[in-house]
Amino acid sequence: LGMAVSPSTRRLLPLFLGLFQGALLLFFALFVTYDKPSAQAEDVNLVANQLYGIFPLFQDIQVMLVVGLGLLLTFLPQYGFSALTHNFLLLNFSTQWALVLQGLLHHFQHGQVHLDLHNLLTAEFAAVTVLISVGAVLGRTSPCQLLVVAACEVPIYLASEWAITTQLGVLDVGGTITIHVFSCYFGLGMSKALFGAVQQPVHPKETPTPRSDLLSLVGTLVLWVFWPSFVAVLCQPGDAQHRAILNTLLAMSASAVTTVVASSLLESDGKLSPGHLQNGSLAGGVAIGAVADMAVPPVAALALGSLSAVACVLGFRFLTPLLARKLALWDQCGIHNLHGLPGILGAAASAVAILVAPEDTSGSHFSQVPPTGGNASEALWGEGGDHGAGRQALCQVAGLAVAIGASLLTGLLTGAALRLPCLARPPERLCFDDSLYFKIQDQAENSRTGDTVEEGALALRERV
Amino acid sequence: LGMAVSPSTRRLLPLFLGLFQGALLLFFALFVTYDKPSAQAEDVNLVANQLYGIFPLFQDIQVMLVVGLGLLLTFLPQYGFSALTHNFLLLNFSTQWALVLQGLLHHFQHGQVHLDLHNLLTAEFAAVTVLISVGAVLGRTSPCQLLVVAACEVPIYLASEWAITTQLGVLDVGGTITIHVFSCYFGLGMSKALFGAVQQPVHPKETPTPRSDLLSLVGTLVLWVFWPSFVAVLCQPGDAQHRAILNTLLAMSASAVTTVVASSLLESDGKLSPGHLQNGSLAGGVAIGAVADMAVPPVAALALGSLSAVACVLGFRFLTPLLARKLALWDQCGIHNLHGLPGILGAAASAVAILVAPEDTSGSHFSQVPPTGGNASEALWGEGGDHGAGRQALCQVAGLAVAIGASLLTGLLTGAALRLPCLARPPERLCFDDSLYFKIQDQAENSRTGDTVEEGALALRERV
Amino acid sequence: LGMAVSPSTRRLLPLFLGLFQGALLLFFALFVTYDKPSAQAEDVNLVANQLYGIFPLFQDIQVMLVVGLGLLLTFLPQYGFSALTHNFLLLNFSTQWALVLQGLLHHFQHGQVHLDLHNLLTAEFAAVTVLISVGAVLGRTSPCQLLVVAACEVPIYLASEWAITTQLGVLDVGGTITIHVFSCYFGLGMSKALFGAVQQPVHPKETPTPRSDLLSLVGTLVLWVFWPSFVAVLCQPGDAQHRAILNTLLAMSASAVTTVVASSLLESDGKLSPGHLQNGSLAGGVAIGAVADMAVPPVAALALGSLSAVACVLGFRFLTPLLARKLALWDQCGIHNLHGLPGILGAAASAVAILVAPEDTSGSHFSQVPPTGGNASEALWGEGGDHGAGRQALCQVAGLAVAIGASLLTGLLTGAALRLPCLARPPERLCFDDSLYFKIQDQAENSRTGDTVEEGALALRERV
Repeated sequence: LGMAVSPSTRRLLPLFLGLFQGALLLFFALFVTYDKPSAQAEDVNLVANQLYGIFPLFQDIQVMLVVGLGLLLTFLPQYGFSALTHNFLLLNFSTQWALVLQGLLHHFQHGQVHLDLHNLLTAEFAAVTVLISVGAVLGRTSPCQLLVVAACEVPIYLASEWAITTQLGVLDVGGTITIHVFSCYFGLGMSKALFGAVQQPVHPKETPTPRSDLLSLVGTLVLWVFWPSFVAVLCQPGDAQHRAILNTLLAMSASAVTTVVASSLLESDGKLSPGHLQNGSLAGGVAIGAVADMAVPPVAALALGSLSAVACVLGFRFLTPLLARKLALWDQCGIHNLHGLPGILGAAASAVAILVAPEDTSGSHFSQVPPTGGNASEALWGEGGDHGAGRQALCQVAGLAVAIGASLLTGLLTGAALRLPCLARPPERLCFDDSLYFKIQDQAENSRTGDTVEEGALALRERV
Repeated sequence: LGMAVSPSTRRLLPLFLGLFQGALLLFFALFVTYDKPSAQAEDVNLVANQLYGIFPLFQDIQVMLVVGLGLLLTFLPQYGFSALTHNFLLLNFSTQWALVLQGLLHHFQHGQVHLDLHNLLTAEFAAVTVLISVGAVLGRTSPCQLLVVAACEVPIYLASEWAITTQLGVLDVGGTITIHVFSCYFGLGMSKALFGAVQQPVHPKETPTPRSDLLSLVGTLVLWVFWPSFVAVLCQPGDAQHRAILNTLLAMSASAVTTVVASSLLESDGKLSPGHLQNGSLAGGVAIGAVADMAVPPVAALALGSLSAVACVLGFRFLTPLLARKLALWDQCGIHNLHGLPGILGAAASAVAILVAPEDTSGSHFSQVPPTGGNASEALWGEGGDHGAGRQALCQVAGLAVAIGASLLTGLLTGAALRLPCLARPPERLCFDDSLYFKIQDQAENSRTGDTVEEGALALRERV
Repeated sequence: LGMAVSPSTRRLLPLFLGLFQGALLLFFALFVTYDKPSAQAEDVNLVANQLYGIFPLFQDIQVMLVVGLGLLLTFLPQYGFSALTHNFLLLNFSTQWALVLQGLLHHFQHGQVHLDLHNLLTAEFAAVTVLISVGAVLGRTSPCQLLVVAACEVPIYLASEWAITTQLGVLDVGGTITIHVFSCYFGLGMSKALFGAVQQPVHPKETPTPRSDLLSLVGTLVLWVFWPSFVAVLCQPGDAQHRAILNTLLAMSASAVTTVVASSLLESDGKLSPGHLQNGSLAGGVAIGAVADMAVPPVAALALGSLSAVACVLGFRFLTPLLARKLALWDQCGIHNLHGLPGILGAAASAVAILVAPEDTSGSHFSQVPPTGGNASEALWGEGGDHGAGRQALCQVAGLAVAIGASLLTGLLTGAALRLPCLARPPERLCFDDSLYFKIQDQAENSRTGDTVEEGALALRERV
């Protein structure tokens, strides 16, 4: 073990993180302040009401990312502590990094940076892409590698999000294209470049146990419950937000039921696969993001939720093994099934929704504001009428293409960078094991029993 | 195993669920739309504020039902994944089914159905009754049977709720009578008809382990924390809602402490029973529902919480074994102790509270609006004074009688329907086992240890 | 076992708790009512809006205390059920006890006590001190002893909080000094007096397992997510509350990253210690409380978060073993590292922040209202200018000194009281074991395997 990860490599993580924290402090000291306090009583009430509107949703999203996503990743039985901790560390690092980058951009344009809850939220959205992407390589990467991923992906996401939302004027309030599709193909490209052409063998520690599957399912349920907040938090208050919440609820409910149908139809013995449930139930939330606040009828949300669940389950059953066999493409968590396929479906749905929207309600599109608050879409819509609708639908498709192309390319480059020896990729036999990075008593439950035969066997295995 | 549940039976679940999803899509396509967007800026603010008022409570309730109740049911050590998944599936199926039924009723009266968060909430309340009822037969039923329960119970609940709240004008803002008492006796009737006169033997997989008890207690705590939202969500905003929250908090706090007192007094060695804690701590929340928004003094909430916890613990200790022995009545989760006894106490308390309410504050009763928003209670109260109070108290008792009678009868009928062979009730030796319905590695934790003696013993047991 | 805890001692817990519940009912019956309902529609809207502002934060805090803190304490592998239950029981008992004491004080001054959500919240804050303090003696105390701690600590906290906040006018919106520092030194004093001069040996059941560490980390994450609500709930609505939320988010994010840096630098093999992560990630939240709503720049929050995480990790690595060796001071959960050191840092930071606050923004200090709503700070600030700032900074330091001195002294006295034989301190060999207080199948997971050799070994160990 000492040979596998040398002491000098062990020092890289705290060194890198420590330097980053220092740079963060410097940047904040120089450029970042809070807004001036409101002078008048009416403004104070306004600030308070805006806070009451956004803060509960913000907390819901925090629970999703820290607890829900963290638990979802604990399906690897001996890698739960690492999964939870790395997810937590990446979220914090990536959010801080996104704050710095957003702040720098803003600073060179407008001077002093005024931090508020909205900035933090968009920075956290950038971090989400990292959390999704690393799912493709969960358990076979070192924390150093994960930080490099974050360092690369956050600026690329910000650029891609700017291109898609502000320049192309793509409507995507829930991040279907900008977050889910982008991070999925970034992760797949990274995985391909990192692991190369060699198909990964099945690792003995890779199989979930009933207990780890149960905890992972709890993570799914936490994500499922709070997903409407994720989709609706950046909507315009009022009807659009209400509609986004309802559409998301309907899509996710349809996903949950359809996943059970699809999963049990696929197996000859009719048993459900835990992996299908853990992912398929969430597929509707991924897909609905791009159309959530549009004036679509409720049935569209239900249909999209069902379709994306079917796509997710079929992906797990057929596409993931196929990609592994044909392309030697490794996707540990199946992010292509949860974020890729439903994301593409959602993008297509948004184009269709824009095309078929009735004349008299198309006005509601104008009321949408893209996540970064740009007014590009209004400019695009200036021509109005069907021509505008056709053009907007094209934009949605173009945005999807940009997201896939840019993320695949940059993901491949990032993955190549991860092969640097100094980043200490764990050797195969030490993958999926908490004890590589944490002072955790390995196999403690079993050795507690005092059965010496068993302990001998354990000790033997550990020496492998 | 192949003989126990034949392949054709395995197909019934996806077939039924798939057809239902199709019908749901059709119904939504034909009849359901969202509300028209608000035209004016003031309305937009109003919609936003209403949303900010209800949405956090709605999310709390979702956490309760999906995470809290799901975890509470994981006390069966090898049935945790099934308990969590079946609870989740039933919640979604029942909510959708309630939406269809509510929508149909509304459609024939008023035409187009306008979906909003309030509709979804009342549909979810209908689903709660199903989740409670199936607790009586947890672990000994197939998913097909559970869906049949949901298909039967949701319309019966809607009819019963209409009769009790709208016709009788019963005041029950937290669903003590309409939800808890109803679903408890429905579940007991169903269990009786399903299992007949044969007393169920103790199953080797039925005993909780320390780990499963711990996870189940976490579920209790989640339910305990969010219960005030469940009781208060349909209250009138303002004082009534504030009072409902405070009453629920007081009742649940008293329940938690009193459960410890009662449980440790009952045992000769003074040790607490995990089951008592998991259920008794919530008894106050069940009981307080009917009086939560009434002008009762705080001490009444405390007393009701204490009393219901005592009733719950005594029920577990004496009544459940007695019912099993004398009536061969099987109640796996002890729903009679958590929902039945405290529910009856709460109904009685509401009658007493109405009778003894002081003249000058009785006006506050008028401000209550029953869950479905009917104005029947106002009509009933038109005569005013003590006469009205007496009549309203009688109504509460009549509502309780209707809830118990209707649910027992329909529960028995539903239970009889569950005996249909095509519904694939699991054979006794395969009960309480996740591996019957899920592709889960059985006993994985133990077989991981590599101890061949142990594995042999395991393999032997599995062949039983 | 029967000898260790005699039946008569077993009766003490329900007797004490039962009498207390009776007294609580009496007190509430005599003195406590709800506020009068609002007469006018505008007031109703106001009440509703205030409720929507505070209730989501209140629920967040409930989740923190009941679920988050409870899970954090489950790191002892065979004591999880006890940790969760005792935490829950203590929270309820202490909150009720604080309500009674607050109510009595209020009653003798103003007559009838009007209960509202704000009263409940401040009572819950009193309960938090108990939950923190008992962390020092987790696993080696009986429930009776814990209740005696609660009975003693709540009134002492109320007196100390009154002296510090109302009399000294200390600004401490997040309870850094009044809650965290106070409860830490109370707990340490108690532990010292209880365990005396004998150093506690390492207990075989004291070592966390991977599974218990994982669940404990989930608790940390729940606390981490909701901490901003805890700090901000008593802030003035508007800018101060917004700033408190942002400062807390920044401090906790910095803590999370810095903990990883500090923990991996401290160990020669660079592995992270679970205990460091579970506690260090929260240190920023403890420290930021006293300055959260002041007009400090964002960089101060980041720096304070980083510093307190470093202090916490260094404390675990060096100070706790030192205190155990030199002073025979037992601190099971390391409360000195999570609450003591970061609390002192936070208090110092608040003094510095007041001194260096720029003239033109110092006005914002005036807008702060201490938790109990006293206006002492305004009186102190009446003189204005730098003189006032210097004096206020001195007050912060004086408040810290009062908190440490008073809590150490009273903690020692309380600890001495815990040595009463009737309180049934568990004997060493039965510490850290759920089966002493709960009807829980000991070692059930292992005995399930049917391996008789193993069971024999287990039975043997149990007989020790």
